Amino acid sequence: MQENKVIRLKEVELNNPILLVGLPGVGHVGKLVVEHLIEELDGEKIIEIYSPHFPPQVLVNEDSTVKLVNNEIFACKANDIDILILTGDHQSASTEGHYELCDLYLDMAEEFGVSRIYTLGGFPTGQLTHTDDVIGAANNPALIKEMEQHGIDFKENEPGGGIIGASGLLLGLSQFRKMDAMCLMGFTSGYLVDPKSAKFLLGVLSKIIDIDIDVTPLEERAKEMEKIAAQLAEMEQQQQQGQQQFMPDTVSSDEDLRYIG
Amino acid sequence: MQENKVIRLKEVELNNPILLVGLPGVGHVGKLVVEHLIEELDGEKIIEIYSPHFPPQVLVNEDSTVKLVNNEIFACKANDIDILILTGDHQSASTEGHYELCDLYLDMAEEFGVSRIYTLGGFPTGQLTHTDDVIGAANNPALIKEMEQHGIDFKENEPGGGIIGASGLLLGLSQFRKMDAMCLMGFTSGYLVDPKSAKFLLGVLSKIIDIDIDVTPLEERAKEMEKIAAQLAEMEQQQQQGQQQFMPDTVSSDEDLRYIG
Amino acid sequence: MQENKVIRLKEVELNNPILLVGLPGVGHVGKLVVEHLIEELDGEKIIEIYSPHFPPQVLVNEDSTVKLVNNEIFACKANDIDILILTGDHQSASTEGHYELCDLYLDMAEEFGVSRIYTLGGFPTGQLTHTDDVIGAANNPALIKEMEQHGIDFKENEPGGGIIGASGLLLGLSQFRKMDAMCLMGFTSGYLVDPKSAKFLLGVLSKIIDIDIDVTPLEERAKEMEKIAAQLAEMEQQQQQGQQQFMPDTVSSDEDLRYIG
Amino acid sequence: MQENKVIRLKEVELNNPILLVGLPGVGHVGKLVVEHLIEELDGEKIIEIYSPHFPPQVLVNEDSTVKLVNNEIFACKANDIDILILTGDHQSASTEGHYELCDLYLDMAEEFGVSRIYTLGGFPTGQLTHTDDVIGAANNPALIKEMEQHGIDFKENEPGGGIIGASGLLLGLSQFRKMDAMCLMGFTSGYLVDPKSAKFLLGVLSKIIDIDIDVTPLEERAKEMEKIAAQLAEMEQQQQQGQQQFMPDTVSSDEDLRYIG
Repeated sequence: MQENKVIRLKEVELNNPILLVGLPGVGHVGKLVVEHLIEELDGEKIIEIYSPHFPPQVLVNEDSTVKLVNNEIFACKANDIDILILTGDHQSASTEGHYELCDLYLDMAEEFGVSRIYTLGGFPTGQLTHTDDVIGAANNPALIKEMEQHGIDFKENEPGGGIIGASGLLLGLSQFRKMDAMCLMGFTSGYLVDPKSAKFLLGVLSKIIDIDIDVTPLEERAKEMEKIAAQLAEMEQQQQQGQQQFMPDTVSSDEDLRYIG
Repeated sequence: MQENKVIRLKEVELNNPILLVGLPGVGHVGKLVVEHLIEELDGEKIIEIYSPHFPPQVLVNEDSTVKLVNNEIFACKANDIDILILTGDHQSASTEGHYELCDLYLDMAEEFGVSRIYTLGGFPTGQLTHTDDVIGAANNPALIKEMEQHGIDFKENEPGGGIIGASGLLLGLSQFRKMDAMCLMGFTSGYLVDPKSAKFLLGVLSKIIDIDIDVTPLEERAKEMEKIAAQLAEMEQQQQQGQQQFMPDTVSSDEDLRYIG
Repeated sequence: MQENKVIRLKEVELNNPILLVGLPGVGHVGKLVVEHLIEELDGEKIIEIYSPHFPPQVLVNEDSTVKLVNNEIFACKANDIDILILTGDHQSASTEGHYELCDLYLDMAEEFGVSRIYTLGGFPTGQLTHTDDVIGAANNPALIKEMEQHGIDFKENEPGGGIIGASGLLLGLSQFRKMDAMCLMGFTSGYLVDPKSAKFLLGVLSKIIDIDIDVTPLEERAKEMEKIAAQLAEMEQQQQQGQQQFMPDTVSSDEDLRYIG
Repeated sequence: MQENKVIRLKEVELNNPILLVGLPGVGHVGKLVVEHLIEELDGEKIIEIYSPHFPPQVLVNEDSTVKLVNNEIFACKANDIDILILTGDHQSASTEGHYELCDLYLDMAEEFGVSRIYTLGGFPTGQLTHTDDVIGAANNPALIKEMEQHGIDFKENEPGGGIIGASGLLLGLSQFRKMDAMCLMGFTSGYLVDPKSAKFLLGVLSKIIDIDIDVTPLEERAKEMEKIAAQLAEMEQQQQQGQQQFMPDTVSSDEDLRYIG
């Protein structure tokens, strides 16, 4: 496999869909949001993308069968809106692979007549205390004006280090194709998988694209996570007091909380 | 050499062979198993594979001639079963090379009419104490059912981090070719070359593929290894008691115990 | 995007222009110099270069629109001299990409009939105390003689580690095309973005190419920087006295002082 | 420059030359040997090889002109023997580049009718105390027999980690072309550039290929180096006695002793 391999599982007719992108990244915020959406909206997997730019790895399923790491596209409907969702196990392992894969995704977006792209990610604050906040960036000024009416926060030159990976690159590369694209980033510590940030980001997104979503499952995971964050904060305090490090089993044994990206 | 180079040393007629894969990896468990099998079954080397994706390195033989690092395929027979064995000095040094080489191996498997692939590896426990255990993963559910009848342990989503390298990738990529493939992993510390784990894994494998193998040589190497593990455990204890680190010459001078992969 | 992408924004007629190169590097000295020149000389952007060898990243503008990282060429005029300026957000992320991009830049230089190339950079002293000094290197002896008349300092075999990145590679690769090229390096600590070094280097360059430039803005930034360097020196001293490390907010919040290259 | 670039400076007629290879590596032993030979035998540079696999770097000459890093081939004569010498500033920066460049060098060797290749390197002992010793490895048993008559030491499976880089790869890849090639390695600490080891290796090589060489310059450099090694040993001792680390200026200011490879 020296080339990307695209497997089309099903033909679907979509009406000017929007594309939501949630790949592994800071706090896995974007991935958590789209995974939740796929479940709530009964998303149907229509495309699998395999690539030699992904790590040479299979994941093991619940039934002990394996899954070659990939990126996947789902189709779903909410109200009258057609939605495509891109998610996956990994982003490209190489710089050049990032450019190649993002261009492939944009080719597909054009093919489906995508009207707008939303890439979803986390904005690392470096603080364990949570803030309910989302900031945005977009690939054209008209989109920013429109989003400000939805109450999205835009800050000059923030994030200061730019947006790295597919969330940013898709915005940059779609400028060459005159496609509207924006990135929404939920505030997150940057240290842990963050369903709380995902829940808040999903709330914001739901309003923008005008869909109703039950966020209860994300809330439950957020509560679990808060317990762990509290434990970590306590541990940190104890360490500063000269006590030995202790790692609760729940962190390493709970697969959902593990950091994959 | 900008392309892989395949040297066919001998034409052989094989009857629906199985393919065993034991490349360097965790505890060198898989490699130890297939090296032992090649010796016991008088395996005949039929193919050498050289690649610019392997490290730029030659190994020095006993007679001081050199061997360019490669992967090799051996043919052997046990009872009425035809067996192909893939082993080697290294796995690919690059992500993309892994995909390219594994596809090359699957092309060969198809060419030989391989009926099933078993990749062999180690499952790192992080504990120096040994456990006689093997877990498996497979690329289709029917294979898992069949293996459960052989007493193979399958655990939900284990290994949690997936299977990395050729052992995993061959399972993933063979799904595209509808070839049966499974991975058997012997429990091992992850810190040392582990003939004891290899011996146990070989026992399990022998039952599955129904062959008789003398494991005495692996047992002897396992005993040597236990001495070293005991020394290491003692050293570790001494260090915790504030004593100076001491590295026995046997560890660094015994080529067989050295970690290559 | 598997190939470099060159976007020509405007056709310009230039008369044997010189090419100034200021890409991110040691102390960002070269980049600061050419950014200042572009502003003072009302440089007009004529070419954008995008490449899969640049990091997969967008930067966020003041208005929250994004900019895919790139390299850019500006055209400007000072007195009767036509000037091309190459600057950018990053240098290549890979070894091979460096060679590819530098050759692309030299193709463009030939196309525009560039008469001479000046690459601008920093020479790291490892000392926080500043020295007003510039050293040079060139791709032919005649150029060195000419530059000595301008008072440029040339030191045997300095920099001892050679010149790494585009500043050096452009000199090396232009030898194959018989193009005159030299590198001017301002002394700088190597730890901080250094407008003071840039100001001094710009002074030297102005005399060589015979243009008048107002350096006041660089002077102001240099003063800010001196305050920060003084703070850092104080902090260092305090640390040596066993006091806790303290990072002033001004360092991390002032985008202009941040180290990007 | 996306391809290797070979510049032929001069056509020479050679009579079954031998090829000596001394590229940067452990202790720079091989490079020191061939640099000395080029000087003593008035070697003439006949070929320059540039490659995108070398680091993006120019070196600065004594007269402040620059030299794009490369590999070079010299031709010289000693007694009635025609000698080609391959040396250079760097080895390949990538795994794949190593294979590509070594194949290029072997193409050239075939073109010149090279009768035998000697790659020269260092064998790292990890000890600062010097031993006058050389070990060898070869790409066929006949060559080993012949060399044993010259008193070359061959040790089973040594070096245990194989031979990495061009010194090893040229032996491995030349096996496919049925070319005789051997590697001679001088014992060296592995920590410092080692003219003493180079001097001893040169003595051994001279006897094998039957040429007379004045080794006085290497002896002088070896004496300088011994002083530095003594200083380092003393420093090490002082550090163990709890004294502060001190780095003599001579180490960092003497360009010849600097480690480049």
